Amino acid sequence: MPDLYFEDLTAGREFDLGSVTIDREEMIAFAQRFDPQPFHVDEQAGKESIFGQLAASGWYTSSLWMRAYVDHVLSRAASLGSPGGEEISWPAPVFAGDELTFSMEVVEARRSRSRPTMGLVKLRARALRGDVEVYRSVFTGMFSARD
Amino acid sequence: MPDLYFEDLTAGREFDLGSVTIDREEMIAFAQRFDPQPFHVDEQAGKESIFGQLAASGWYTSSLWMRAYVDHVLSRAASLGSPGGEEISWPAPVFAGDELTFSMEVVEARRSRSRPTMGLVKLRARALRGDVEVYRSVFTGMFSARD
Repeated sequence: MPDLYFEDLTAGREFDLGSVTIDREEMIAFAQRFDPQPFHVDEQAGKESIFGQLAASGWYTSSLWMRAYVDHVLSRAASLGSPGGEEISWPAPVFAGDELTFSMEVVEARRSRSRPTMGLVKLRARALRGDVEVYRSVFTGMFSARD
Repeated sequence: MPDLYFEDLTAGREFDLGSVTIDREEMIAFAQRFDPQPFHVDEQAGKESIFGQLAASGWYTSSLWMRAYVDHVLSRAASLGSPGGEEISWPAPVFAGDELTFSMEVVEARRSRSRPTMGLVKLRARALRGDVEVYRSVFTGMFSARD
């Protein structure tokens, strides 16, 4: 049974989504399948790139954040999915061995006018390595109302 | 040697990025690892969800689009990576066996003022199943100038 409904997701509320250490093998395997740009799959090409070393695909970082969001929030929420977002950015590269900490914050929440049994919640996703922001997104989640 | 530079990416230019058929096994494996919401990993939960059947994680669709973009454009382009985008959306669900066609269009292009040897190119990503748009994104790519 979910314990997080639309009414619980109030503006300003923050969720700690835990942390992960970037696994070199999985990072490269992901890039080989989905984003085989030289600086994501080849050590030497990474060194010669603007990143200075082999860097993770941004989509890998996004996917790891998503997993943390499922584990810490969606698995206990009355979620109805997401239509998308209005921002997605990777302000700094991610490297093998990095420890990333994930978080989510409620930016704003409003009940749907066309379907008042649910609410639309604007959320900010973040991943940090220490103080350095490596991933940020603002997207909308749809959640059932409790009442 | 690349044959696509900043100067070649002019507003309105469109690129066909080919098509793929959604592989059921990989679709589920991706969701199990990165987005294990019930409607992405469990047949019955999919049927009972707003999607009506087991649906792909949006991040899987995004990742498949990325691969097509690498194969058809970035592998022949003087690319310097991407800082992110201003829109990402999944207007309709994607199912196993779907054939998706991918495309990319140049929205606008301008030379960097701070670093005139490169340009910032705003691009629109799209994935369609027939006439139905299932993925759309607007993001920025950085490309070296030819001159």
